[in-house]
Amino acid sequence: MPDHRRRSGRFTSYSDAMRPSSIRALEALAALEPDLISFGPGRPDDSLFPAEAIGRAYAEVLSAASAAGHPLNYASTEGLPALRAWLAARERAQGRRCAEANVLITSGSQQAIHLVTRLLVEPGDSVVVQSPTYPGALQVFTANRARISSIGEARHPPTADRPALIYAMADFQNPTGACLTLEERRELVALARQLDAVLVEDNAYEVLRYDGERLPKLSEIDADDPDDGRTLHIGSFSKCAAPGLRLGWIVGPREMIARMALIKQAEDLQASTLSQSVIAQLGDYIVGSHAVTLRTAYKHRRDCMLAALRSHMGNRVAWREPHGGFFVWLTLNSDADTSALLPDAIKAGVTYVPGSSFFHDGSGANHLRLSFSTGDPDRFEEGIRRLAALL
Amino acid sequence: MPDHRRRSGRFTSYSDAMRPSSIRALEALAALEPDLISFGPGRPDDSLFPAEAIGRAYAEVLSAASAAGHPLNYASTEGLPALRAWLAARERAQGRRCAEANVLITSGSQQAIHLVTRLLVEPGDSVVVQSPTYPGALQVFTANRARISSIGEARHPPTADRPALIYAMADFQNPTGACLTLEERRELVALARQLDAVLVEDNAYEVLRYDGERLPKLSEIDADDPDDGRTLHIGSFSKCAAPGLRLGWIVGPREMIARMALIKQAEDLQASTLSQSVIAQLGDYIVGSHAVTLRTAYKHRRDCMLAALRSHMGNRVAWREPHGGFFVWLTLNSDADTSALLPDAIKAGVTYVPGSSFFHDGSGANHLRLSFSTGDPDRFEEGIRRLAALL
Repeated sequence: MPDHRRRSGRFTSYSDAMRPSSIRALEALAALEPDLISFGPGRPDDSLFPAEAIGRAYAEVLSAASAAGHPLNYASTEGLPALRAWLAARERAQGRRCAEANVLITSGSQQAIHLVTRLLVEPGDSVVVQSPTYPGALQVFTANRARISSIGEARHPPTADRPALIYAMADFQNPTGACLTLEERRELVALARQLDAVLVEDNAYEVLRYDGERLPKLSEIDADDPDDGRTLHIGSFSKCAAPGLRLGWIVGPREMIARMALIKQAEDLQASTLSQSVIAQLGDYIVGSHAVTLRTAYKHRRDCMLAALRSHMGNRVAWREPHGGFFVWLTLNSDADTSALLPDAIKAGVTYVPGSSFFHDGSGANHLRLSFSTGDPDRFEEGIRRLAALL
Repeated sequence: MPDHRRRSGRFTSYSDAMRPSSIRALEALAALEPDLISFGPGRPDDSLFPAEAIGRAYAEVLSAASAAGHPLNYASTEGLPALRAWLAARERAQGRRCAEANVLITSGSQQAIHLVTRLLVEPGDSVVVQSPTYPGALQVFTANRARISSIGEARHPPTADRPALIYAMADFQNPTGACLTLEERRELVALARQLDAVLVEDNAYEVLRYDGERLPKLSEIDADDPDDGRTLHIGSFSKCAAPGLRLGWIVGPREMIARMALIKQAEDLQASTLSQSVIAQLGDYIVGSHAVTLRTAYKHRRDCMLAALRSHMGNRVAWREPHGGFFVWLTLNSDADTSALLPDAIKAGVTYVPGSSFFHDGSGANHLRLSFSTGDPDRFEEGIRRLAALL
């Protein structure tokens, strides 16, 4: 009989390993300060949701319940056939073979990262990430007691074993805003093959390219047919449509998709039937003319942010100009500590996310992430002025 | 360094332990047979959704986005303040102390069962269930490699150790339709105390009482204040509103609520903001006049089912008349095998769920569950006639 008292308290090691999101905590804090200019959370701007189209789609979907299933009732765990078919067709339009069986609908891309991890990562397994990377992914890997290392470390065999997965964003990375070059993409796919690891590609900001040329996704480089490859591609409707709907998806080899569907069935049965029905109806609009609207608006916001940085930041601060997404990544003098500085910044009326939130090893104190996705762009300059005065 | 190759393939033991829901498989099968009279899945009836009210609420919510947060954007993991407050007030109206901090909003009650399990159950831990019980709960416990025993077994100390949790439905149990007596409720709470186990009360069918007297919930018997008790009470909007919204909740001690919120944050960030906004607006209507409509309609369905059983089933078959919920539980001769019989039943144009789906030890072959929640009640008699001819 196992020793059921092996742990100190009543709670599991999984619960004990949970760490709150520092960004979500910051969001709560920022909400309390009315004059605060927040460059913290990477939320979409409220005014840019396709609220009217969504409202119309709800009305239509609710009035046109068909024999194929009512939008308010249960539906299959894998996802609504119409939505899976639309996503598979979109992959095919980009030149890949893709069947509905290669697509799983998830309750947002955070759940996609969670399902991938629960499929592949046992406690103690190695997981490889870009450094810095998305803190929500680090939260999942840490909770599942993965040993996390960077891609740089994984390239050196003496310190690496076979990782369960490599997690990467090739476009408009969170937090750096960087896109991988074609050469870097090929090297990353080759590394995954060499290490016999599953390559998890998070492409949450896919439609938000403001300039620069689209390069093939990691999954496209990996294999023409998802079933022949080792890539799990994660997409999200949070940035192109609305996070409040909680919809994302995974494209990958059908065996892995089927296994993750079983995990999802046990964990929450399915994503919202109603949200899926609405997005299935609006898909072409969302990635079409609505995405054009979004790109125009967010490009303007990015340009305001970059102009403010050029005006107020001296040459002690470096940044990269992102071709898309929501973020600008700042690098300060090597002795700067942006976590220690944050309380002063809030007092001065500006927030950001400290760099260390994005590093698996707690390093990165001399970086910070600025989000330009929300707030009044006419106040960006004032916010950056406040920040520059502190740095 | 841990042995990262300790398992045979690429997938985790968690994925390997997943078993598909036999009921969801049956649902897919039943959809293919147009003349089939299905007493299988426990889905709400499409015609009884408050679709108009939900449609109106969506329109209102989408047009009235406030500074408190946009219904299409991110919201806090714990749940929308308005919905948590409404649920806490409802508990208080039933005579308990309850704060918002005692309430967590989940993506359906299946996720609530999953979160409770991830909070409390390590592999090898003991979990105690009613026998028979809800297969979706067995699916979660099995996937987390719990050792499952029945309440009867747990009452005999020689075979029991301290269970991580006791999972029970006190009202309109799935599958038996039974309600616990007041005495049985008190004994169950006492057993949880004696074993120092958390008591998980699943009350998914709460508002669907057709006759008989309401008895206190296990959580009410346990403690006036959730923080003083050991009960986690799980509720669902799937049966009283609509499963397609994917909303449930947990009421319990705030430390456990906070810990489960952290788990949920890592796993899917939050439940749908839009679904929560709509239900926060419709709560009183749903548990008020809409629940009256539901009770009238489902009571009629239950009565049709019971009349058909009385007309066609000989005295070799026994059943209990349920006071609420969706199900009638049949007990056949002890040598009957309802799993083996199912293909013949489908050929004869009728389905049910075999009894063994509901037993943790695979027993129960001489039982079956009939659902009266969907389908044309005028055809119930024909369905029961087909079934009786087989038995």
